Amino acid sequence: MAEDYRDMWTKLGLNLEAHDALLQILGQAYADIYVSQKERPEGMAYFDFVMSEVHGLRIKELLEEKASGRKIIGSYCVFVPEEIALAANATLVGLCSGADFALEEVERLLPRNTCALIKSSFGFKLGKVCPFLEAADMIVGENTCDGKKKAYETLGHLVNNLYVMDLPQMKSQLGRNLLKAEFIRFKEAAEQLTGTPVTAESLRQAIDTVNAKRAALHRLSSLRHADPSPISGLDALLINQVSFYDNPARFTESVNTMCDELQQRISDQHGAFPAQAPRILISGCPQAVPNWKLPALVEKSGAVIVGEESCVGERGTRNLVDNSNTTVDEMIEALVDRYFQVDCAIFTPNRERIDHILEMQKAYKADGVIHYGLQFCQPYLMESIPVEKALEEQGIPCLRLETDYSMEDAGQLETRIQAFIEQLQ
Amino acid sequence: MAEDYRDMWTKLGLNLEAHDALLQILGQAYADIYVSQKERPEGMAYFDFVMSEVHGLRIKELLEEKASGRKIIGSYCVFVPEEIALAANATLVGLCSGADFALEEVERLLPRNTCALIKSSFGFKLGKVCPFLEAADMIVGENTCDGKKKAYETLGHLVNNLYVMDLPQMKSQLGRNLLKAEFIRFKEAAEQLTGTPVTAESLRQAIDTVNAKRAALHRLSSLRHADPSPISGLDALLINQVSFYDNPARFTESVNTMCDELQQRISDQHGAFPAQAPRILISGCPQAVPNWKLPALVEKSGAVIVGEESCVGERGTRNLVDNSNTTVDEMIEALVDRYFQVDCAIFTPNRERIDHILEMQKAYKADGVIHYGLQFCQPYLMESIPVEKALEEQGIPCLRLETDYSMEDAGQLETRIQAFIEQLQ
Repeated sequence: MAEDYRDMWTKLGLNLEAHDALLQILGQAYADIYVSQKERPEGMAYFDFVMSEVHGLRIKELLEEKASGRKIIGSYCVFVPEEIALAANATLVGLCSGADFALEEVERLLPRNTCALIKSSFGFKLGKVCPFLEAADMIVGENTCDGKKKAYETLGHLVNNLYVMDLPQMKSQLGRNLLKAEFIRFKEAAEQLTGTPVTAESLRQAIDTVNAKRAALHRLSSLRHADPSPISGLDALLINQVSFYDNPARFTESVNTMCDELQQRISDQHGAFPAQAPRILISGCPQAVPNWKLPALVEKSGAVIVGEESCVGERGTRNLVDNSNTTVDEMIEALVDRYFQVDCAIFTPNRERIDHILEMQKAYKADGVIHYGLQFCQPYLMESIPVEKALEEQGIPCLRLETDYSMEDAGQLETRIQAFIEQLQ
Repeated sequence: MAEDYRDMWTKLGLNLEAHDALLQILGQAYADIYVSQKERPEGMAYFDFVMSEVHGLRIKELLEEKASGRKIIGSYCVFVPEEIALAANATLVGLCSGADFALEEVERLLPRNTCALIKSSFGFKLGKVCPFLEAADMIVGENTCDGKKKAYETLGHLVNNLYVMDLPQMKSQLGRNLLKAEFIRFKEAAEQLTGTPVTAESLRQAIDTVNAKRAALHRLSSLRHADPSPISGLDALLINQVSFYDNPARFTESVNTMCDELQQRISDQHGAFPAQAPRILISGCPQAVPNWKLPALVEKSGAVIVGEESCVGERGTRNLVDNSNTTVDEMIEALVDRYFQVDCAIFTPNRERIDHILEMQKAYKADGVIHYGLQFCQPYLMESIPVEKALEEQGIPCLRLETDYSMEDAGQLETRIQAFIEQLQ
């Protein structure tokens, strides 16, 4: 990191010793997994820099925003509408949840049979190692899965200002009404937090900002249709992960610059991997920073990941918000239309997700699909069985994996992944 | 069984060989666990008879009802309003889900990390051993936990006429609106199934029938406040279990007859266990027939179970429906009021449940509480930690158990239960 941020971290209440240890491990993992890659686009330098400063410069920026009167809202889910936060003069950031931390303390508050993502969010709080969480003025939970829904009841005792957004379980008219009512309630909560009313002007501008970010990520995804893919799955995943932390406008510009470079690479037939590398689509649970276990194993085995059907990937970025409206209420309707299309496994029925996986497999010319399930994540593990069935009916090989954030099963996973990739060649 | 029902079972499509094996195991378990008990009330003879004929005479009765034009609706949850089924000229029955069956086949359709209750419901279908399921004209699923919600998507391919009821996750005004809309939709579905419109007259009568059943069960519960308790926890659980299968009016009469006997026992200080036996309250997941593992281990260890904070127990029977209304719409409102009070762990927040557990501990003079969690049941396992905390704050010993339907852990459970009971003496 360029500067010494120890004073800043101390003021935020971080446990410096534990945080140093975390940064040490993350820095090493990043060097081993990311920096060691061959044929990386030059544009990745920006994202490498963001990652190296993710707990440093980016936090300093957020604290400067706070000093200027802006508020920081932290969230754990792509259902929390960034557009509304931005329009109310708040910055939305994703909260740390991609690594095990303080597991023993966590398991005094949550059952052992809880998914790693939820345990991680508790671990970063209990271990005092997440500067985003400590800098946040409001933290938004949401009633997605049982695990998160019930865990927020306990998280509410650990953090200040936890706000919980209710969500429907079915995409019915009543379900849509609930989502709309919850978006309006969130708007009011954000307005109250910041003291800034959402106006048609500010909301339209926020919609444009977030649309531009999603469009850039969608442009990046589309470039991965090319064979050979101009970028590794690890790098593309990183860009998706950074989208949850970075300043949206600067991020969008950097992604578009990167895409210009990737277009040139495609013209030059310059791939991140050799042209004959098997192409893999990853589908399933979100992979939050620094959860790079699966893509590292896949790409180390010689396959290239060409797409992520995931919240940290196309499920989170797929659709844009109609920006042709003039009133706040119309824009909220447009937001509801967009977010109601997110095909999370919490919904029943959820046939759209299977259709999207089949479409993505075709569009990305994937030779096989790896379904990534976090252990104890019931919605995605349940849905992985019909997903596999639908793929097999189309003759598309599918490997269902179930894992957590530990490295204990890395050897076993690698063996299964290698066997799967061999079958594709 | 008094008669030979093999023709009936064959016509229902049961697998006779597998079903014989099941009845054999159940009969033996019933003899070992139930019939061997000392100091049983004479009134248990009725429930022993019902259990001995639960796949025989009771099915014959249901088929006779069907022949006379009535319909059978099967359900897996206490949120399905029996009043509406009865008012539409249908009989509501609980579906088998208290034992492992065809586990290998089940785990091809559901993840291994699925709770035993859900796996069991699939196992009884795949193994063709549940005559209630095969006799049902409509099967009602419901969006309670993630596991059931997603499993119904697959169950829909295995059974005819699966109907899924949506449920809210929060007890908000919108949540209440959803429950009401779903009760109206269920009424319409039941009317369509039976061809019989629900009238104010039929609904009021149905409310009276179900109120009488719940009042009888509540009377039974109240008698267990006495010290010594006049009935074992095993027998009281059985009566609650039978309430899901039996004819409601006959059942109510039998429970009330039993209660008369128990009142006499209380006057005579005649307990099912010695007066000094430690008193245990069970709290947590439902225990469906023939899931008698926990109460058998507890009462074998010399403690007496005095109450069940469970769907098969007070959570399912606690409140009555206001029967002072005159129109169907008012009665539906009254039903919603009643069912909206069920404090299932699927709701967030769910403080009422903790308060109920504390109230029950006092009312039943329980020396300790055993929290019964089915492995992989996230809502109840998550909630068990704050439940334990609330009890400990009041100085009430609590033992949190997590188990499934296998007997593999019986020895280990018994050791923990005995140690817990010793600590209460």
